[in-house]
Amino acid sequence: MVMRNKNLAKLQAGYLFPEITRRKNEFLSANPGVDLISLGIGDTAGPLIPVITDALVKASEAMGTNDGYYGYGDERGIPELRSAIVDTWYKGLIEADDIFVNDGAKPDTGRLQVLFGNEAHLAVQDPSYPVYVDSAVILGQTGEYDSGSEGFDEITYMPCTVENEFFPDYTKVPHGSLIFFCSPNNPTGAVANHDQLRDLVSFAKLNKSIIIFDAAYSRFIQDSNLPRSIYEIEGAKEVAIEVNSFSKPFGFTGLRLGWTIVPKELKFEDGSPVAKDYSRIITTIFNGASIIVQKGALAAFTDSGLQQMQDQISLTMENARIIKTALNNLGYSTYGGVNAPYIWTKIEGMNSWEAFDRVMEEANIVCTPGSGFGPSGEGFIRFSAFGKRQSVLEAVVRLKDLM
Amino acid sequence: MVMRNKNLAKLQAGYLFPEITRRKNEFLSANPGVDLISLGIGDTAGPLIPVITDALVKASEAMGTNDGYYGYGDERGIPELRSAIVDTWYKGLIEADDIFVNDGAKPDTGRLQVLFGNEAHLAVQDPSYPVYVDSAVILGQTGEYDSGSEGFDEITYMPCTVENEFFPDYTKVPHGSLIFFCSPNNPTGAVANHDQLRDLVSFAKLNKSIIIFDAAYSRFIQDSNLPRSIYEIEGAKEVAIEVNSFSKPFGFTGLRLGWTIVPKELKFEDGSPVAKDYSRIITTIFNGASIIVQKGALAAFTDSGLQQMQDQISLTMENARIIKTALNNLGYSTYGGVNAPYIWTKIEGMNSWEAFDRVMEEANIVCTPGSGFGPSGEGFIRFSAFGKRQSVLEAVVRLKDLM
Repeated sequence: MVMRNKNLAKLQAGYLFPEITRRKNEFLSANPGVDLISLGIGDTAGPLIPVITDALVKASEAMGTNDGYYGYGDERGIPELRSAIVDTWYKGLIEADDIFVNDGAKPDTGRLQVLFGNEAHLAVQDPSYPVYVDSAVILGQTGEYDSGSEGFDEITYMPCTVENEFFPDYTKVPHGSLIFFCSPNNPTGAVANHDQLRDLVSFAKLNKSIIIFDAAYSRFIQDSNLPRSIYEIEGAKEVAIEVNSFSKPFGFTGLRLGWTIVPKELKFEDGSPVAKDYSRIITTIFNGASIIVQKGALAAFTDSGLQQMQDQISLTMENARIIKTALNNLGYSTYGGVNAPYIWTKIEGMNSWEAFDRVMEEANIVCTPGSGFGPSGEGFIRFSAFGKRQSVLEAVVRLKDLM
Repeated sequence: MVMRNKNLAKLQAGYLFPEITRRKNEFLSANPGVDLISLGIGDTAGPLIPVITDALVKASEAMGTNDGYYGYGDERGIPELRSAIVDTWYKGLIEADDIFVNDGAKPDTGRLQVLFGNEAHLAVQDPSYPVYVDSAVILGQTGEYDSGSEGFDEITYMPCTVENEFFPDYTKVPHGSLIFFCSPNNPTGAVANHDQLRDLVSFAKLNKSIIIFDAAYSRFIQDSNLPRSIYEIEGAKEVAIEVNSFSKPFGFTGLRLGWTIVPKELKFEDGSPVAKDYSRIITTIFNGASIIVQKGALAAFTDSGLQQMQDQISLTMENARIIKTALNNLGYSTYGGVNAPYIWTKIEGMNSWEAFDRVMEEANIVCTPGSGFGPSGEGFIRFSAFGKRQSVLEAVVRLKDLM
């Protein structure tokens, strides 16, 4: 028969989150009736803000009419939405034709890997969102898994630790690499400041590398002195792609909508624009995000819509404060949770999966094991601040009882 | 800087449909005010059937409530939809857990190429839907473009011509290939019968190949003796993947929804199930189709919903009959258009782009040049039957005046 793709064979366990679901379901069938609280996967608790719900309804109704029906559209997204994103969040930084609307940051990470192909070299923060590494492995950019280092050969891991305040040493990244960089960071909750990003951009320029800047959590930054986009840094357009998402700020995890910015100034080594090849990917193996969902998001770009979004984010960040304070009061060191919806902490004397199991079995809370994000995540667990206030308060009580 | 992916450099012109849009826009800016009729791209004219519109509205409203809100779901689609698809169209043939719901056949073709990887060998009908070849090129499965043969090296092109009644000779396909096969065919409109598919399945088994059967137009088959799924053929589960779509029968081109069937019986050469690796692809670089869109489709699986869908299909097939009859009366030989929404025809003495330009400039109708679908499409043009009846009737009048 047809040969199995050897790159898929390199992947070790399943993708992190399905593995968590598996353990959770195993626990629940052994302990029926237990009320687990999920502070694991960063899933939004909803409901959608009214202005978006209304727009989704209107867009749905329109599809049932002759005049409002909408078939194939621009694969890069409806022009009004691209303009609204730029006018609201990137004014003077990039232009609407640099924006590509898509069905979310995760699938678009896959498309970006297809864009750069199997000869690309990946550098990642360690720990990091597992999709960066897994998609690189699937595309054949890496060697085999090395159980000693707990990483894949031919990837440059850049440890982000308590010691370096979660900002990595990138100086060993080879020339011509793709540097995946996430700020606010998933999972550590760390946010890079202007000086740090300025240095990173300068390095990428000298090192002939491209930064893929994951800003999916940028709307959660509370400190107005921190950068919310890589394009706030001068010269970034020549070295950086930015990936972003409606999932977390708008509660669109189930609706599927994101955007990626590939500035026309970004070039390959041969001088050809990256955006041209990316556009070819988008028109060939993607067909645009759902029109209804795009129209729903578009409606949020009004003063009142953006205020409603901000109010929802404030609820999440108050959840983060509650969880972080509780952990601190129990004597645990915590990181993140101030400008990011994730709290990164560690239970001394346990590895990540042991801590995960203990928190699930004894406090009936689902968190995420840090080792699932990379070797330097070992020993840590991540708490997500997405969830209903009621659940967060109950979780805090259970944590106190446990610890 | 980072090197350009050499596989993208192999692609010749842009993807076919954007190139048509470019020529169309060029014509329109030179001839402002001209009312072009599109019988080109297979885009649905809508509106959605009422049962779907109502369900989309209801699903949208639910997202604004605490109880009805929906975040991340099963990446393979909601279980109710997977069951409805099987119960309605594949009863006794495959099971619900063989179905993977996605955002359309085009993006899923990309994911299937990622699944099989850059060492896979492609065999395609010639002409065929351009995404099969282009995605294979992008993934690095092919050699360079050969301007002599007008095809890519290391792809097996299987000519589908008037002489072989558009059913190809597959006997030269190398062992262990991926055979992309589309029936009802886009662009020729040909439909394979049971005997032909039985032979193809037997061949694939002997030849250790996997068929990727594109059945996106299967609901348009009018003759109840023709197979609508490859799984109607005994043994197909061990050699075939089926790709399908809500786009054309349900008018979902702008909504984005499809499904792919990877039966658990389908194995790689090492005995491991293809579905396991495909599931890893789906959970790693895809995140499920939009929940609202899934709920919209689900609502159509009632007697009245399916009847409404059938009525819309009948309108399209009546369009096809009108176009085909008009062309035949004008003395042109036509193919397809009886069990498929496409009519394949040829204007003697012109190549495809010349015919395309002539039909656009003189009849103000946009069709699709056959050569865009592969070397054996040269000389042909394709008319799509999707469109409003009024436009189709007007197009027929214009064709009479031209020819």
